[in-house]
Parts: sequence; structure tokens; C-alpha cells
Amino acid sequence: MFKTFSFKTKNHAELIDITGMVRTAVKDSKVNDGTCLVFVPHTTAGLTVNENADPAVKQDIVAKLEKMIEWNDPEYKHTEKNSAAHIKSSLVGFSHAFIIHNGNLQLGNWQNIYFAEFDGPRSRSVLVHIMGK
Amino acid sequence: MFKTFSFKTKNHAELIDITGMVRTAVKDSKVNDGTCLVFVPHTTAGLTVNENADPAVKQDIVAKLEKMIEWNDPEYKHTEKNSAAHIKSSLVGFSHAFIIHNGNLQLGNWQNIYFAEFDGPRSRSVLVHIMGK
Amino acid sequence: MFKTFSFKTKNHAELIDITGMVRTAVKDSKVNDGTCLVFVPHTTAGLTVNENADPAVKQDIVAKLEKMIEWNDPEYKHTEKNSAAHIKSSLVGFSHAFIIHNGNLQLGNWQNIYFAEFDGPRSRSVLVHIMGK
Repeated sequence: MFKTFSFKTKNHAELIDITGMVRTAVKDSKVNDGTCLVFVPHTTAGLTVNENADPAVKQDIVAKLEKMIEWNDPEYKHTEKNSAAHIKSSLVGFSHAFIIHNGNLQLGNWQNIYFAEFDGPRSRSVLVHIMGK
Repeated sequence: MFKTFSFKTKNHAELIDITGMVRTAVKDSKVNDGTCLVFVPHTTAGLTVNENADPAVKQDIVAKLEKMIEWNDPEYKHTEKNSAAHIKSSLVGFSHAFIIHNGNLQLGNWQNIYFAEFDGPRSRSVLVHIMGK
Repeated sequence: MFKTFSFKTKNHAELIDITGMVRTAVKDSKVNDGTCLVFVPHTTAGLTVNENADPAVKQDIVAKLEKMIEWNDPEYKHTEKNSAAHIKSSLVGFSHAFIIHNGNLQLGNWQNIYFAEFDGPRSRSVLVHIMGK
């Protein structure tokens, strides 16, 4: 099963919970045992998994990435001036595979899946591909 | 084949070699050609592959991550005070897929698979899922 | 289908476009719907996806990684003196899975796949594994 989800981000940099989308795709696929590949087709955004309880974790991740990879570095050569977003994308990564077992997406108790916007707000999409039986 | 491995980590931050575990799972699966997905169901740990020869490489990775993402940053808002571990988890990543060819896990000569503990010591687990034939 | 590609890198640190290689492997596999796993069997190189338009993006990624993870840090203990390359490899990552749909590798408009050399020039290889039907 292959599905594309589209949505709009609201902030310049934020982590957006897409766990529900992915769980729904897994359920709809009726795959009992297999893998679910989530892929972000953008170069200024990423995909990660992190804590779903205290929202401050998301803020701390976004803030530290901004501190490590500052937006305005005079050495950046890219004319669009958003090199920081491209670098964050390569460090955080843009795709992950997840396990489906007994029809359920296998995530740890504290794990949710996040779309990482690094140069928003923009229209974005996420591709989900499910294999198995 | 789906398998969960559980173990205890001994240090606050360390890379723990799990290559043997993964190779055993691949052998037990009797899959000749396919993929092996290794997934860490935690938000303060990660998964990586790196050099298996000089143990100083592991120390240098752990030390540099600590230097880049310091444990005590007064700007962290997360009340549990372990934001550094969450950030390292999102940067190093928490899952990887490996190739199985001719019944063997395909790794480079110098590559081993490491569970990355960033907030130990703790009880941890790793999920391994194998597909193919 | 399992295929190994070999090539020589020319610089100490660079991003090398391997999108054509991967697309050819997908085409040759005749897989219509499935996944393509690209795996770098080295510990001082990585794999990433980023912008294919302005080449300055690649330069900015390489330059910022060098600034964040400096080559000559007196605290490195690894005797080979290339710890920076090992650390970059663990941060950027060494493998990614891609979706094949309707016989085509699914990439965003601006995305190309790059082999990341962090300690060249060297002889390198990339493993490509394709599953599906």
C-alpha cells in the first residue's frame, strides 16, 4: 500500500505529530506482519521519533538544533539563504522504517512519530509505504 | 520473524555492540535474501553502525556528542532534565535496515551495530524484524 | 535484487550524487511496487538526500559538518586521527530505504541521493537491495 498525506505547517520550525496518520495507514492496509516506510519528500524538513508526553521535549530539540546550526551563518553560500534547514534535514534524516507486528505499528510507550519542519510555514507531504501480509 | 532482545546498560552514555544478537536473529530466521530492520523503542537511546576495531572510536563518538549537546544547558525546558539524551536520539537515529544476502547480514569489514545509550544505566530493549525468503 | 556499486572519491570531504546509479538499479530490477535499500558499508562515509539544484547546498552541508565536528580536536583518542569522519558517519547515517511505486523511485522534486565522503579520497562502494514485485 502506498499513500501520500498532505498538510500545511504553521511555524518556521516545529515538530508535528503524524503518529495518527501512520497508524491509520497501517490499519487500512490490513497488513498483519510487515514494515511501514515513512518518507519525507522535502529537503528542508525531516522525520524523527521522540517523546510524546512532555511537549517541552519537542521545543528543546528544535531550539538546540537552531543553536547548533544557526540560521544566519555568513559562511553559507546557498543563495536561498535556508542552508540551515537543509543541514538539519541531513542530520535528523528524512525517512524511517517501522515494524508491523500483529497488525500494530511497533512503537515504544513514549515514542511518537514527528514531521520536522525546518523552513516553514509550507505545504508539505509525507509518503507512507506498507509491505507485508 | 519478529524478536525482542532485552538487556541492561551499565553507564550513563555508551555504545553497546549488538552485532552478535542481530546476526543470530538473521541465522535463526533462515532467510536467505531479504532485509533486517533493527528498531530501538526508546526516546533517550539510539542505534548506529561504526568501527569495530579501535574501541577509542566509540569513546570519541560519545564524548563529541556530549560536547555538542551538553547535558546541563540552562535553556532546556523539559522537566526531566534529560533533554540532551532526547536530542542525541533524534540526531543519531533509532532504527536502521540491513541487507541479508546469501543468508548473511551485509556489513562492511569494519562495521558493527551499536545500541547507543544516552541516559543510562537502564533496562533497554531492541526489536528485530526480518523479511525475505 | 542485490547489487554493489564501486567508485573512487576525489576529495577529502564531498557529497557525490548517486541518484542515477540507484534509479538504474530500480529500473533493472523490474520491481513495480516495493522498497529499495541503499547501504554504505563504510564507517567514515555516509548516505543522505538533499537538494539537487544549487550545488552550494552540498558545500554548505560539508562545511558546517566540518565546523561542528572539527578534524583536529586534541581530545580525540582514536589513533588513526580520523574520528571526525566516524562521528559524521554516525550523525548523517549510512543507509536509507526508498519507496518504489509504479516502477519509479519516489523522490521529491528537489531530492537527489548523495554518498557522503568524510575521509577521502578512497575507493568506496554502495550496496543496493530491492524487494517487491
